[in-house]
Amino acid sequence: MANDDSGRDAYALARKVADVMYQRDYAAQHLDVKIEDVGPDYAVVTMVVKPHMVNGHDICHGGMTYALADTAFAYACNARNVATVASGCAIDYLAPAHKGDTLTATARETAHNGRQSIYDAIITNQTGTVIATFRGRSASLKKPVL
Amino acid sequence: MANDDSGRDAYALARKVADVMYQRDYAAQHLDVKIEDVGPDYAVVTMVVKPHMVNGHDICHGGMTYALADTAFAYACNARNVATVASGCAIDYLAPAHKGDTLTATARETAHNGRQSIYDAIITNQTGTVIATFRGRSASLKKPVL
Amino acid sequence: MANDDSGRDAYALARKVADVMYQRDYAAQHLDVKIEDVGPDYAVVTMVVKPHMVNGHDICHGGMTYALADTAFAYACNARNVATVASGCAIDYLAPAHKGDTLTATARETAHNGRQSIYDAIITNQTGTVIATFRGRSASLKKPVL
Amino acid sequence: MANDDSGRDAYALARKVADVMYQRDYAAQHLDVKIEDVGPDYAVVTMVVKPHMVNGHDICHGGMTYALADTAFAYACNARNVATVASGCAIDYLAPAHKGDTLTATARETAHNGRQSIYDAIITNQTGTVIATFRGRSASLKKPVL
Repeated sequence: MANDDSGRDAYALARKVADVMYQRDYAAQHLDVKIEDVGPDYAVVTMVVKPHMVNGHDICHGGMTYALADTAFAYACNARNVATVASGCAIDYLAPAHKGDTLTATARETAHNGRQSIYDAIITNQTGTVIATFRGRSASLKKPVL
Repeated sequence: MANDDSGRDAYALARKVADVMYQRDYAAQHLDVKIEDVGPDYAVVTMVVKPHMVNGHDICHGGMTYALADTAFAYACNARNVATVASGCAIDYLAPAHKGDTLTATARETAHNGRQSIYDAIITNQTGTVIATFRGRSASLKKPVL
Repeated sequence: MANDDSGRDAYALARKVADVMYQRDYAAQHLDVKIEDVGPDYAVVTMVVKPHMVNGHDICHGGMTYALADTAFAYACNARNVATVASGCAIDYLAPAHKGDTLTATARETAHNGRQSIYDAIITNQTGTVIATFRGRSASLKKPVL
Repeated sequence: MANDDSGRDAYALARKVADVMYQRDYAAQHLDVKIEDVGPDYAVVTMVVKPHMVNGHDICHGGMTYALADTAFAYACNARNVATVASGCAIDYLAPAHKGDTLTATARETAHNGRQSIYDAIITNQTGTVIATFRGRSASLKKPVL
């Protein structure tokens, strides 16, 4: 098991990877996604639903909710400084999100085997209502992010 | 079976629904998604991968590819003028998309039963390479779009 | 919050529902699935991989692993005595299971909204290796099981 | 492109692979799945819903429907004599199947890239009603089946 120092190191590394990734993550920046917290196997990100994120039914476009969850997944699965990409993801929508809502996506590793991992994210709004659940499968690329 | 007139009507209705939806679909507009073709059970949409759609690995953010496919799905499943929303979707990524690529998502109904339908979309780039496959499950709301 | 009595009642009800369901669950019986534990929002089931569960690659047929997880899901989502069926499920395989392995599937509710719920199951073997992860979406039918 | 001879060869190879796989596919044999047709990128399989396939709601256990679809997927994705396994699958249930129904699952390759492929299957009953749709992601192992 990790001692306190290596535990702190893992968190510091996760933060450093997130900072470097975010600088070139123009999609997350453009959506104004905030990386609120990140650790060796998780990430917490938030996004306000802006007027340009609403679809033809006047609710948050499913693609925007997905993009938020996918961003949480990306920061969680790269946090150990091994470059990792998504091979497939699924999302279930449980309640609509509306313009002005603040959405939080929390992604965490559920299982892994070799280079494959499963990450789950939950997306909630500012009242704690679950908007969607997300599951992503990742494959690591055997190279560092940094 | 439909005669020629009702067939034409179904396509005209699909087009009209798409036009009305697009006017208030600020997400699709913001991503500059074009509704290239739409019919009673399908839609073809395109999007150029812009600089603000790239992620920390310098490839198109998975959320943007998803948003394009989800948009094709939305226009396909609302095309009969019955308001319909996604209950869940899944995407499998097969190849990365890059800045400047023109992506096409073609969504089509695969099966339905009562108010539930399954739609599949394929996302390709300008050379015909399959970037991703997408499957969405929709539930209709028993009210018209128009 | 439930007091101790209602908590006990919820567990007793879950057990009773499971017993009644199992009596007519010929598929679970035929696979010799054991309902090891069940509560208001979870179930733990086990199954030994028998010779008739092996596929052409000499590993446990993916459909048998799935059937075990789906059974855990079914007992978990019916445990509050509201008849509930699956609308869709997904499984990710992380490691093969072999003849003679004892597989355990633990299903638990992750989120719900109205009549829709998301349940997650993890399938492990006798050494604790994760064989697969499973996610199911359920819809309740507004009638009791008992 | 293949000429007529190589086309015939591809079908003959698919049939031979299926025959060899089936001889050791004790799960498919036990469920009495019949391999009705197989070609280089598809397979058609059938199964009668037997009394031991029914669940606690007196309908075909979702795991049995899944197992049929997964079997069609397995024979389709191994048909080119490259050993291939499932990495993940999803199923959407559209209508229940009942004891005595004859279910047909038709699986076909939808897309591929390198060693990854996406296969889709549709499961229908004897009246043509769609019982479920299935999607599987496969990874090839760089070794022959035969």
